[in-house]
Formats: sequence, C-alpha cells, structure tokens
Amino acid sequence: MPQPTMTDRYGALAEDLTGRGVDLAAVEGALRTQRVETPSWGYGNSGTRFKVFPQPGVPRDPFEKFADAAEVHRLTGICPSVAIHIPWDQVDDWGALRDHAAALGMAIGAVNPNLFQDEAYKLGSVCHPDPAVRRRATDHLLACGEIAARTGSTAISLWLADGTNYPGQDSFVARWRRMEACLAETYAAMPDGCRLLVEYKFYEPAFYHTDLADWGMALTMCQALGERAQVLVDLGHHAQGVNVEQIVALLLDAGRLGGFHFNARKYGDDDLIVGSTNPFELFLIYAELVAAGEAATADVAYMIDQTHNIEPKLEAMTQSVVNLQEAYARALLVDRDALAAAREAGDVLAAHRVLTDAYQTDVRPLCAKVRRDLGAADDPVAALRAGGYAERVARERVGGTPASWT
Amino acid sequence: MPQPTMTDRYGALAEDLTGRGVDLAAVEGALRTQRVETPSWGYGNSGTRFKVFPQPGVPRDPFEKFADAAEVHRLTGICPSVAIHIPWDQVDDWGALRDHAAALGMAIGAVNPNLFQDEAYKLGSVCHPDPAVRRRATDHLLACGEIAARTGSTAISLWLADGTNYPGQDSFVARWRRMEACLAETYAAMPDGCRLLVEYKFYEPAFYHTDLADWGMALTMCQALGERAQVLVDLGHHAQGVNVEQIVALLLDAGRLGGFHFNARKYGDDDLIVGSTNPFELFLIYAELVAAGEAATADVAYMIDQTHNIEPKLEAMTQSVVNLQEAYARALLVDRDALAAAREAGDVLAAHRVLTDAYQTDVRPLCAKVRRDLGAADDPVAALRAGGYAERVARERVGGTPASWT
Amino acid sequence: MPQPTMTDRYGALAEDLTGRGVDLAAVEGALRTQRVETPSWGYGNSGTRFKVFPQPGVPRDPFEKFADAAEVHRLTGICPSVAIHIPWDQVDDWGALRDHAAALGMAIGAVNPNLFQDEAYKLGSVCHPDPAVRRRATDHLLACGEIAARTGSTAISLWLADGTNYPGQDSFVARWRRMEACLAETYAAMPDGCRLLVEYKFYEPAFYHTDLADWGMALTMCQALGERAQVLVDLGHHAQGVNVEQIVALLLDAGRLGGFHFNARKYGDDDLIVGSTNPFELFLIYAELVAAGEAATADVAYMIDQTHNIEPKLEAMTQSVVNLQEAYARALLVDRDALAAAREAGDVLAAHRVLTDAYQTDVRPLCAKVRRDLGAADDPVAALRAGGYAERVARERVGGTPASWT
Amino acid sequence: MPQPTMTDRYGALAEDLTGRGVDLAAVEGALRTQRVETPSWGYGNSGTRFKVFPQPGVPRDPFEKFADAAEVHRLTGICPSVAIHIPWDQVDDWGALRDHAAALGMAIGAVNPNLFQDEAYKLGSVCHPDPAVRRRATDHLLACGEIAARTGSTAISLWLADGTNYPGQDSFVARWRRMEACLAETYAAMPDGCRLLVEYKFYEPAFYHTDLADWGMALTMCQALGERAQVLVDLGHHAQGVNVEQIVALLLDAGRLGGFHFNARKYGDDDLIVGSTNPFELFLIYAELVAAGEAATADVAYMIDQTHNIEPKLEAMTQSVVNLQEAYARALLVDRDALAAAREAGDVLAAHRVLTDAYQTDVRPLCAKVRRDLGAADDPVAALRAGGYAERVARERVGGTPASWT
Repeated sequence: MPQPTMTDRYGALAEDLTGRGVDLAAVEGALRTQRVETPSWGYGNSGTRFKVFPQPGVPRDPFEKFADAAEVHRLTGICPSVAIHIPWDQVDDWGALRDHAAALGMAIGAVNPNLFQDEAYKLGSVCHPDPAVRRRATDHLLACGEIAARTGSTAISLWLADGTNYPGQDSFVARWRRMEACLAETYAAMPDGCRLLVEYKFYEPAFYHTDLADWGMALTMCQALGERAQVLVDLGHHAQGVNVEQIVALLLDAGRLGGFHFNARKYGDDDLIVGSTNPFELFLIYAELVAAGEAATADVAYMIDQTHNIEPKLEAMTQSVVNLQEAYARALLVDRDALAAAREAGDVLAAHRVLTDAYQTDVRPLCAKVRRDLGAADDPVAALRAGGYAERVARERVGGTPASWT
Repeated sequence: MPQPTMTDRYGALAEDLTGRGVDLAAVEGALRTQRVETPSWGYGNSGTRFKVFPQPGVPRDPFEKFADAAEVHRLTGICPSVAIHIPWDQVDDWGALRDHAAALGMAIGAVNPNLFQDEAYKLGSVCHPDPAVRRRATDHLLACGEIAARTGSTAISLWLADGTNYPGQDSFVARWRRMEACLAETYAAMPDGCRLLVEYKFYEPAFYHTDLADWGMALTMCQALGERAQVLVDLGHHAQGVNVEQIVALLLDAGRLGGFHFNARKYGDDDLIVGSTNPFELFLIYAELVAAGEAATADVAYMIDQTHNIEPKLEAMTQSVVNLQEAYARALLVDRDALAAAREAGDVLAAHRVLTDAYQTDVRPLCAKVRRDLGAADDPVAALRAGGYAERVARERVGGTPASWT
Repeated sequence: MPQPTMTDRYGALAEDLTGRGVDLAAVEGALRTQRVETPSWGYGNSGTRFKVFPQPGVPRDPFEKFADAAEVHRLTGICPSVAIHIPWDQVDDWGALRDHAAALGMAIGAVNPNLFQDEAYKLGSVCHPDPAVRRRATDHLLACGEIAARTGSTAISLWLADGTNYPGQDSFVARWRRMEACLAETYAAMPDGCRLLVEYKFYEPAFYHTDLADWGMALTMCQALGERAQVLVDLGHHAQGVNVEQIVALLLDAGRLGGFHFNARKYGDDDLIVGSTNPFELFLIYAELVAAGEAATADVAYMIDQTHNIEPKLEAMTQSVVNLQEAYARALLVDRDALAAAREAGDVLAAHRVLTDAYQTDVRPLCAKVRRDLGAADDPVAALRAGGYAERVARERVGGTPASWT
Repeated sequence: MPQPTMTDRYGALAEDLTGRGVDLAAVEGALRTQRVETPSWGYGNSGTRFKVFPQPGVPRDPFEKFADAAEVHRLTGICPSVAIHIPWDQVDDWGALRDHAAALGMAIGAVNPNLFQDEAYKLGSVCHPDPAVRRRATDHLLACGEIAARTGSTAISLWLADGTNYPGQDSFVARWRRMEACLAETYAAMPDGCRLLVEYKFYEPAFYHTDLADWGMALTMCQALGERAQVLVDLGHHAQGVNVEQIVALLLDAGRLGGFHFNARKYGDDDLIVGSTNPFELFLIYAELVAAGEAATADVAYMIDQTHNIEPKLEAMTQSVVNLQEAYARALLVDRDALAAAREAGDVLAAHRVLTDAYQTDVRPLCAKVRRDLGAADDPVAALRAGGYAERVARERVGGTPASWT
C-alpha cells in the first residue's frame, strides 16, 4: 500500500479538526504569522568546556551567517531575522550588513552585548567592584545601543554572566546597585522604540551566586529601569523542576515578558534543540502564549539560543524551528471554551484532557501545509539534506577562520 | 462537517502506518497482550501530609476494591490483576477473596508488605538497630510470603521506608547488613516461582539517607540475595534529571528488571497520573522495553502506584491505563531498522527523528481499536463517566470505613 | 587531665577573639537580644504522609503548648513568643491565653491562618475557581486579623497551599487575580501595626504548580498589596541549589523581608532541625542579616517551622534554637573591615577566608556564656534532659487528645 | 591584648581534647600520614565554556607543574604525588620526569587518559558505534597502562565523557557492551599492582545520557572487569541531593572504593575548592572513611580535581589541601564509642550531636601543629603569599605556551 502523502494526511487531519469545531483558517493564519529569530552564533562552532568539535562549512563572517540563516528561513518560512552578537558580529559597515540581509529577505534582530569574554570581566562586568571595569562594560552596552540604532534593531538582549564562585567573594547588594546604575545609564541612552531584554540564569559560569539568577531578580531590575525593560526567558536557565509556563504567564500578565531564548535541557543549561527533551513543556509554554492573546504577545521576541555540539548546525536549527511550529500548532488547537468550562466546574481531569487532546494531535501535516503556503518546505530537514546547501558551503568556505563561540 | 468517528480515524491511521511499512497486525497483537496491574490502595482515599480529601464511593474492604479494579479492567481491557497491600487488604479467608476476584475475571497480583506504619518502625524496620524490631519486620515479610503462596501471587513487592533524618543517626553499613540478613531470610522462605521485587526510592519519608536510595543499591542487594530478587523501578523515585530509561535498559540487560511502579512526578514522589507530566519520558521507557524484546521483558511486572488526591480515583486510574496503552503503542511504531541504520551511521538527528516520528503519531484511534477488539471501551474515561459506576457505588457504599492509605 | 569547663573555654575563646580585634561586648550584646519564635504546632505530633509517630507528653491544648514553649525559652533565653495556628490554637477566650502566656513570661506571636485543611479547599482557597470558597477563605483571613488584634500579635503569617496537580487544571493568571483580590481585602482589614507575611513554597501539596512558588511571586504580590506586606522565607521552600542568602540580601535591600521559617532540608520540604543539614548555609544567611545592619532587620520575624517526626520534640526545638544562636554568633564574628577590603581589592580567596575564619570558630563557649547571662542553660539540650520536664509532662498529660498537625 | 599564637591555641585545644578523652597522639599520627594527590592540570589554565581567564606564571610543561605541586607539598606536608594526564603531560623521556619529581621529593601518581578531546570522539570513545574509534580509544588506554608501568604509577584513573545528547541517538545497551569490551582489554593489559579507577558522572559534556552516569553503573562495570577495577567518586558528579557519604560507605564496605576526585559544587560539576560550598558534607565523607578503618581505606586514592577559574591556582590548591586536613581532623575527633552507644540506644539527637560536637571543634590549631611537625607551614596560604613563589614563577615563566586544560 503506498504511503499517504503529507497532503493526503493534511486532508484527513483538516476533516478531523473541522469536525471538532476548530477554526482551521484562523489556526493556519496564526501559524503563518509565527516568527522565530535565529542567532548568528548558532551557525558558528560551539561546544562544551571540554571540547569544541568543529564542523565543515561553518561561516567565517556575519555575511555568511546571514546566508545560513536565510537558508533556514527559506525552508521554514518564519525566520526572517537574525540576532547578532557584539563583538562576534562586529563589522565596519553596518549598512552593508543590513543591505546584505535585506537582499536575502532578512533583517537584523536583537543586538546581544558580550560582557563575559574580556579579560577585565574575570570578577564581573556591570557588577565588578572596580568602577573602571564597570565603565568599560557600560560603554560596551552604549555602543550596542548605537548599533541597534544603526541596524534598525529594536531590542538589546542582555545576558550577564556576572556572579561569584565563593561565599563572601563580594556583596550581593553592592553588586546589585552597581548593576542598576550601569543598566540605568544604558536604558536612558537606548534609541527610541528599542527595548532592553534582561535575561536571567540560574548558574554558570558563576557557581556560587549569579547576579541575575531568576525571573524575580530580572523583573525587579526591569521595574527599576522602566517600561521598556522586559524579562527574557531562556528555557534552560532554571533550577530543576521550575514551572516555566507559570513564569511566562505571570510575566505576560504583568506586561513584562520581553522574549524567549528557546532551547532544551535535561540537566544544566544544555542548549539542546528546543523541544527535544520535554516537548510537552514546550507545548504548555505556547499554550500560555495563546491564552494570553495576540495583543499581550505582540512584542514578544521569539529567539533560539542553542549550541549544536555534535549534530549538523543547519539541520539542528531547522529542526528547532519545526519543533516550535509544531508546539505552536498544538497550542492553537486547544479548545479554549471547553477548557474554561472544565476549569469553572472544577473538573480537574477534564481540563487536563482538553490540553492533552490538543497535544496528542499529530500536527505535522498541518505545519507542512502552512509551510507550503509560505513557499517553504514540506519537510524542512529532509529538504535541507536533499538540497545540497551544506555540501556547497563546505566546499566554498575554504580558508579564513570559522566563526566560533569563543 | 461531522466529526470523523474514532473508527474513521483508525482507518486513516492504519493506511498511513501500513504505508510507512508498519506491521499493524503485530502492533495490535502486542497491544492486546499488554498488561497493567492496578493497586488496591489506589482505590482508597489518599493525600499529602497536609490533608487527605475523602472521595465519595470509596471501597471499604478488599472485595470492593476488586470491584473497582474490575471496572477499570472492563473499560481498558488490560488490567486483570490487582496488587494487594498487607495489612490494608488482610482478610481472614484468602480463598474467598481469590474466588471473588476470579468471579470478576480478576486475579491477585503482587503482595506488598507494609514496613512503615507500625509504631515500632519509627527508626526503621529491617534496618532498625533493635533486633526485636527486625524480627517483627521479618516475620511480616514471611507472612507476606505465605499470603503469596495462598493467593497464587508470584511476586512480593517490597518498598522499604527505612532511612535516617540526621547525619550520624545510624551507621549506613550496619543498617545495610541488617537489611541483608532479614531479606535473605525472606528470600529463602519465598514460595517457588515467587520473585522478590526490591524497590528503591531517593528520599521520603526519611530525609537524610534512605537505605535503598537508588537502583545501584537495589541491584547490589538483589545480587546478594539471588536470582529471584529483582529491581522495581518506581518512576517517581529518582533525583531530578536522572535518565530513567537508561536504568531500565541496563537492568533489562542484566536480567534484573523486576517491574515498575508507574506514576508521574515533577518535583518529589508526586504520585500523579502516569504520563501527565512528561509523556515523552514514558514513551522512551517503553521504547527500551520494546527494544529489549519479548523474552527479556516476559516477567516484568507493570504496576501502577499513584495517589489521586484531588481527581476522581476511578477516572484517574482509567486515564493512567490509557496513557500506558498510548505510550506502548507509540513505542511499537518506532522504525527499528531505520533507527539501527541511523545509529550505525552516527547520524544523530536522524536517529532522534526516528523516535520522534513514532512519538508524534496520534495513536488514539489505534488504541481505541485495540480496546474494541478486547471488548473494552473506545474512550474509557468517557465510558466511565457515561456508565454511572461511580454514582452507583457512591450510593451503595454507605456506612463502614472508607479504605484509606494510612 | 580534667576537661576544661565551658567557662574555661570561654576564657580562652574570649582572649583569642579579643586578640583578633573582635568587640566582644558588642557581640554578646547582640546575642542577648537575638529572638527566635517557636511555633505552637511544633510541640504537637506531626509526621509524613506515610505515618505520624506519636510522642509521649504532647500538649493537648494551646495552654500546654505555651508551657512547652516556655521551657524552651527558659533553657535558651531568646524564645519569648509563640506563633499560633488557627484553628489548631483556637480558644474561646483569647484574653485567658494571653494571660497564661504572660504568666509564663511569654507572648503570642504571629497568627497563622489555615487554608489547606478544610474540605472546601481541595482545589485551592483564595485561588479557588468558586467564589464561595474564596469568600470562606477570605473570611478566615479576616478572622485571623481579628485574632491578631485581640492577642496583640503584629503579624499574620500566611502560607498558601494553593496550586494545581495537572497541566491545564486551572488558569495561572485567573488564580493570581483571585488571590490578589482576597489578599487585598485581608490587607485592608489588618489591624494597625500588623504586617502580612507572605510565604512562598516551591511545591507540595500541589505538584504541578504552586500559586506562590518563589520569592519573585511573593514579592510581586506584596508590591500589589502595600508596604505592610512582606515576604516570608522558609528555608525549605526552594528548588535544589537556590542561593537563599542572596534572596535574603535582596529582600532586605528592598525593605521586603518579613521574616523566616527556619528549618533544614536536603531534598524537599523536609522540615528538619535548622542547621542540621548544611550549617554553613545557615551561617551565610545570618551573615547577610548582620551585614544589612540593625535598622534593616529590626522587624524581621525569626520563626522556626519544623516537624520533629522521630526525635523528641522539645529536644529538637531546643537544639534548633541553639543552632540559631551559634549561626548568629559566627556571623557576628565576621571581620567586616577585612571583608570589605578584600572585596574592594578583588581578592577572591581572601574575602572567602574572612567568612570561613568566622565560621570555623568554635562559638559554643561564647553562646553558653550569653545564655548564662540571660539566666538560661549552659547546654540547653543537656539541661532539658537532666531537668525531667519531658518525663513530668508525659506523666501529667494523660487523657485528652494530643495536639496534632492534622 | 595580643592575639594568642597558633601554638597557644593548640595548647588550649589539646587540653580540651585530652580532657574529652581524645587520644591526641593517635589523631596527630593519623593526620601526619594523610595523603592528597594534586592534579597536574590543576596548575594550568582552565575555565568554563564561556571563557578561560589566563593567569600569570602558569607552568608550560610537566616539569614546571611538578615544581608547583612541590610547592604545595612544601606548604602542606601531605601532597607528595601528582596525577598526570595523557597527552597533556606526555613527555619523551618518562625517566627524566620521574627523576625530576624525585628530586623535588615528589612522585608520579595516577595516570589519567584523555578520551574526550580527539576529533574522533565526537560521538564517544569506547562506546562509539564505529569500531575504529573504539580501537583508537583502547589503544590510548593501553598506552596509558604502559606509561603507568614506566612511571611506577599504580592507578589508571579513567573518566569517560561518553554519552549522547538526544533521545534515540544511540543504544544504551550496545554502548555498554562496547565499553565493557574495550575496558576488559585495558584491564587485562594493566601492569601488575595497577588498579583501574572507574569514574562516573551525572552529566556533561553529554546532556541526554552518560554511559557511566552513577555509582551503580561504575560498580557494575567494575564487577564485570575484576577486582582491580574500583569506583572513583568525584564529589561534583552527582544529582542534586544525592547522599555521597552513603555511597562512599557502601563502596568501602564492598571493597570497591578506588578513590576520590575532591572538589566542591553547588549546581553542576562546578569544580570549586573542596569544602567551600558545604564543609559539613566533606566532614561526613571523612567520618565514613574513619569509621571504615585503616585497613579498608589503605588503598583509597585521595585526589583533587578542580578548576580554579578566577582565584590564583596555587593558593586555591593549597587552600583545598588545608580544607581536607581540617575535614579529616574533625572526623578523627568523632567520639566513636559515644556514637555507637547512642545509635544502639536509638537516641537520634544524641548520635547526631556526637558528630556535630566533632564538627564544631575549631581544628585549625591542631592541623597547624601537625603541619609544623611535618616541616610544613603553620598557615599554608599565608605562607604561600608571603613566600613569593608565585611572583617568582610569574617572572621566570616567560615565553612558551602556558599549560591549559584544552
């Protein structure tokens, strides 16, 4: 018996969903407008503290990174922007990079400062006890604000590695105030329309305390800075067991969810392909985004932040976007009326089953259909493998220094 | 447009799976022979240390518990046995209970000793420093062996709550040797054909150390006892992040996987409906069972161990069985040839995708079909709700003392 | 050779500390003014979900609980108040209890509402979907406010067990708003001078989400309520690895640290004797309190919240207070000038060693001296054992129902 | 008032301890024979995946590493051997290195293979699906065995980074069997008198599963190999909450504790100064070693494995040894008769207090005395700072490539 095509399967699914009362046109419309930003550094080499395994064809400059990102966008249809990292993506002529991106149908996304790889930052950056180091860090943040202005970016996405390794090493409170002063200066100088996305992280590279260790600290800092400061949620930056979807919901409710760094983890900040460890959790996060409604989520920045240590980078990035499409698709299928009714009635199992009914739906044909609508690929990873892009760039990108995370 | 029936959906799925090369008859055959044992105590009231919320219609004796279990079996088709707990299910006439079970199409499953609710066990049972307490505990184990003989049970399922709360409280090694002596006596007296299933648990009710805290301790103890001692894996008894499917695979390989206590957890030993927190993990566990093959898993005891604190118990138990059916169904769909080839080739993403392809399949129509084949319910939870069983027993079970966990 | 007395050892220690430049009079003065509030429920029976092991001599009413607490105060010198729990400590005549306490040299401390043991609270209290349940819960909170007024208590100490067990069960945001409305009504009705202490907890008894799950949620709620709402930190209510002393420092800096529930944990909310698992962490918390200064900590409520499942309750409570005395004593010995200098210089190891120098000091003779100054016991646990109090109350408290946690 | 000298403080402590019945001569004798092996790589640069902050004066070859290690030995008196890492410490002439070491009063300790930094090991070493890679890995292990023979080393200390990042990537069982075959070949070829120390690790650099993830797996592998295979316990390689001292005790009892990699952690494998995070846990581990007795621990290899990312390496290593001395000293002070009596009597708190009595003792004067006996430094870190060694090597070690972890 021949295998049904993805189009056949879409037909059966559409019939099923429509029969269940799903407004399929609305769901597909939402999926077509989904956006995911990929990170320039996700196309370069990366690894663990023990080893970076280099891959062939890795881009050697920001221009080549945008080419790779454009390939991911071509295959998935929803990734037209690229987050950049300063200084890894520093170029002399921002206009040229902007034009290059535009020619590829791409745009420059969030600007990511680097406050962890300068020799001066051994004991911190904006929290460092030495005011000269804080000045240097703040100047870098200000420079990133200028880059945002020049590139048309609307977000500075700030991850601080600041923290300490030993009890007593420094004062929590003194460091907090130093941070607040530096970020206030940065905030005041941001271009109009630009937001400061403040990321938190449970630990690493600091192993006793991290100055922005959880969402409560990030939110408190954002409150001190102003309305354009919002919290960035990286899925791998929590203690074991933390209910991330609850944090997402509360931040959305407070108008302070700035965006995501998507990835997956089982242990620490593992930076794996998003959805590969616990796809149900990813679905639950999207279910909160859908529940909050379009207005509340209009400005959320959906960004990937991963390291593909052992699997091919372009495949991994493409798979990640597909996983996000499928998580969103499932979330859009939640029968919100039935859910509200079950909750109202205190019917625990019925409410839970409304979610699992949506989750268990095999949405792959639906996502494939949406991608076809967008002119992207039915099966993006298969198309990438079939298309020969990776082989071509591996042949072409000879000489020079492959981009690397460090 | 009318919603497709589950039968319609099975047709589409069968076509799809067959097209993908799945041997559907074999899959359905395997699903029909799946077995899950439900626990008698799962039908009684239970709760947290803060509160037990009683439910209506709770059985008042082992006979009524078997009636409830029979209802779950009627709906799901794969639950013909019930684990019993001594003394909670102690009866004067074991033959009467056995006949009662048989009349319901049921059998008595694993015998579970209780070594944690006697006043004497405040500091432990088989590990207690006082030999008189160890004698009492061992005698209870021996009595359970006799009950196994009388009820035709082939397994004693042993969970030890033994442990300490404070550093220094007792000697790890002295306790270990006491345990070994008591269990050796128990093991020697077990009826022919009976196995000793040795459960481990990370913590609770002991909060400094637990005498059988992980699979390594349980396995070491089993090795000391003999071949009929095997490890019991409770899904909620691990530290955060532990890869349970790896432990399952290694125990199977060593011929020491005795069985499971199924449930779900996000934090501690939460004892929630299996599959409700991380259904992907449950699938991965079943994928290892399928990979090991029928011979290796022939004696594995698949048992549920949950507490339904806030949701209706019968619904929760029924849903749990459905979740196990769906997990197993997905695992049976894994394309093992493709998996082996991708692994051989070192194709990380392809191998991973073989698993997720199976996992993403919406197997509900397939499981419904199998249940129909077994004379069970298309949608067991819906059928339970529609059938009025819960209302009926709530009316009938008036007076007496509802069974409770404590 | 005869063992030096505690007084001898104090002499040697005093010489040593004075030689190191410690202002011993100031340290001892601070230790004499340390205060720890013990909980009435800590004198009653308690246990795990598996078993409550009853103890002899357990008080049968609030009056007897105060007698036990007075014994702990007599031995330690710093525990003149007792937290009460409603309805466990509900009495008809609050004046009589107040007089009884006063006659013992004691006072009524924080009032603890109970929003988790009513049948109505199965799905929550102030977060419950049913407004009638929220009304009931709010009325209980209002009643606790009145009790505070009548007893002269200056704090309502609120722990919410509210949460859900299954994804989808209820809306995070809807529950949040319900909670906020109920607590706002409670806050508005609090007596003058009374504070609302808002406790958070990572999990248990809810196992999917907890409505006040971390300090960020508690702080956000307090901000919504007003200045007299402050966060309560229970040492056992965090995810594994969370840096509690950092949270303490930041809350102090924000003027929002309301108080502590002291206990120790290795796994979940184990409620063990404070300091028994990781005494260094307890020291680090006190080091932050000392660093913040007297003004910032003037209103902090230092309360114990433990369950003594297997060890004698009075001994455990007494030992807990001693542990808190010693942690504070060590924190007072930190050479703050040397610490500031090392931090300023970025001398990581030197700063760390300033803390460990203080921590390693054997402060037992110092604490014994302070207790003697207060008319309390040299070695409180030994004195308790020698004094025969436990034996006496075990003889006297015959008949009636021993107080229990549930 | 002048500060008492360390000698004065020793006098007071000795009087106190002797009065308590401690056999001080025996304690000091045990402390003088304590041994700690420092790792050659601990003297080179190291860091996190985000950044390696280089330090001045870092050795450029194994000879200079031994010089640094000799300085640590000179200051502490108990560190006469150095673990080496192949290929980081590969030299052409092992005799020359051995002579160099001997001239410094030092010896070559455990030989550590490297199976994680070759390009071939991207998907594993001895577990790799490709037999050619396994051959390469096994040949490296065999070469390390030869190096052990030539250097007089009596241990091969094996850490495997092998694992997978994605569910399905490879077969747990197939990998296990590959590992067993390679290690069996290695084991068979080990020189007489040499042991294979098998380390386990919870996670990192693999993030889905690790082939030797816990002590149970390491022990099972050792059992398959033979008696000269023993388990290596790295303090940072456990899930959160795991009771490490229990594992140590059980491995000792089974005759399978091969040694330690000492370090401290709060989150992941943080590799901080041992004892800096939870000194009580370190004490409890040493208490188990003392309890097991000298015969049982005669062959245990006590090795440090740390990365000093932000603090001066020599100071950190020296401080680590001091922390180990103090932990052992405290453990030696445990009143084992009183402990046994309290345990026998089921006196929970008394038994716990026997441990904390020892732990709270300020053993610094005792350890200083022992170091003076050994001709080492009263305060090793202070002596290191005062002695100018670091400044001298920083001046001398100009040019060349500083040793680095990667």
